[in-house]
Amino acid sequence: MVTIAGAGPGDPELLTVKALRRLQQAGAVLYDSLVSDEILVLASEAAELVHVGKRCGDGVDQTERQQMINALMLDYARRGVHCMRLKAGDPFVFGRGVEEVRFLKEHGVPVEVIPGITAGIAAADLLHIPITERYRSSSVVFSTGHASDCSLDEFDALIALLKEGTPLVLYMGLKNLERIVERLLASGFSPALPVSAVARVSMPGQQLLTGTLETICGIMYAELPSTPVVFLMGEHAVPVSSLPTTS
Amino acid sequence: MVTIAGAGPGDPELLTVKALRRLQQAGAVLYDSLVSDEILVLASEAAELVHVGKRCGDGVDQTERQQMINALMLDYARRGVHCMRLKAGDPFVFGRGVEEVRFLKEHGVPVEVIPGITAGIAAADLLHIPITERYRSSSVVFSTGHASDCSLDEFDALIALLKEGTPLVLYMGLKNLERIVERLLASGFSPALPVSAVARVSMPGQQLLTGTLETICGIMYAELPSTPVVFLMGEHAVPVSSLPTTS
Repeated sequence: MVTIAGAGPGDPELLTVKALRRLQQAGAVLYDSLVSDEILVLASEAAELVHVGKRCGDGVDQTERQQMINALMLDYARRGVHCMRLKAGDPFVFGRGVEEVRFLKEHGVPVEVIPGITAGIAAADLLHIPITERYRSSSVVFSTGHASDCSLDEFDALIALLKEGTPLVLYMGLKNLERIVERLLASGFSPALPVSAVARVSMPGQQLLTGTLETICGIMYAELPSTPVVFLMGEHAVPVSSLPTTS
Repeated sequence: MVTIAGAGPGDPELLTVKALRRLQQAGAVLYDSLVSDEILVLASEAAELVHVGKRCGDGVDQTERQQMINALMLDYARRGVHCMRLKAGDPFVFGRGVEEVRFLKEHGVPVEVIPGITAGIAAADLLHIPITERYRSSSVVFSTGHASDCSLDEFDALIALLKEGTPLVLYMGLKNLERIVERLLASGFSPALPVSAVARVSMPGQQLLTGTLETICGIMYAELPSTPVVFLMGEHAVPVSSLPTTS
């Protein structure tokens, strides 16, 4: 049996009780770069801790890395070692959990998936930033905005939805921010559309930067926040305290 | 200080460590109808447990109920009792956490919000249903599809995005399912679009019903699953084991 679990946004207290219990039991923990030391320290002392995340300049491409992780999980499973695959956030929200579940099932290995708190929702909660609200927004979009995964038509449809007032929670958007902002502005969005950027959600050094579609890129260049950063865009996507009252 | 916390989808093991700790400390717990007994039993024995959720036929409207909850939180805060407002799922994902945070801030009461696992993501994880996948979907929409909160233009924009392959996770959709399905079919969606319905996510009696846009309403009428139900719609929104392999 392999456990694929979300570690949440970083604060060990935002692990689920179930993920914590599995972490204390697992014989091997395969963890990503974004899983914090404060979380890894909770693993059993006997556990093998294996870093399988990206390392700057290691020259391994995503597909190779995934094959390596798959092979490791399979190897542990065949040796009867309870392997925990620990991912930042939630495994099924831009976490490639699907690929690993599919691989394990194809190889006859039983797999359980334990949800984790995803960074975009944690950012909204911890900074009190509305992403849904009665009478205001009945939908919310989570997106990476990655060009490789997102066709132009899809992006246009996304923009149409945002124009109707649906907030956008953007993951891994730092690298593509300028391009995304340019496309939104070119589509007729108000330069005054509020954007909140939350760096290192729930972790030491958590930082909130607020701006608008017009100012956010400049703010990011000036402040150079630590990664990861999640962006919340929308008419009401600013912390509650700065909003006018509705009553 | 008031703590507004997400209880997750129902399984007490899917509470975060932080929410569990607060639950064991709080002097009063104001909980919604969907918070399970298995979770409430974890509260301190000394805590006052107050049910503030909807009761069938109690004749209290949503606005009145919210005012009553707000008044209760304020009263506990003023008496120096640590009050925990415990909501199913996550407080900021269709949970009205925003309204309560705003009210408390307006009244000068410090408030913390603790994220919870939201039912739509838990359903994806627990049933192995892809809602995002590399090279396939870089966005996912969470929506209530409630007519009261969703304009026709917004719904049209939502449909355009779904047509581009973005999965839809539909909350509280049982009552509106027929109307929503009709609108999707009228918009030219394939009747064969996969739909997974997950009832009582993570709780005893959890049930997965799979169908298509054409069959899902009939399936719901025939099976009459227990509530709550979350729907996952999309080209790949079926459990991984039934999908063809990608390799």
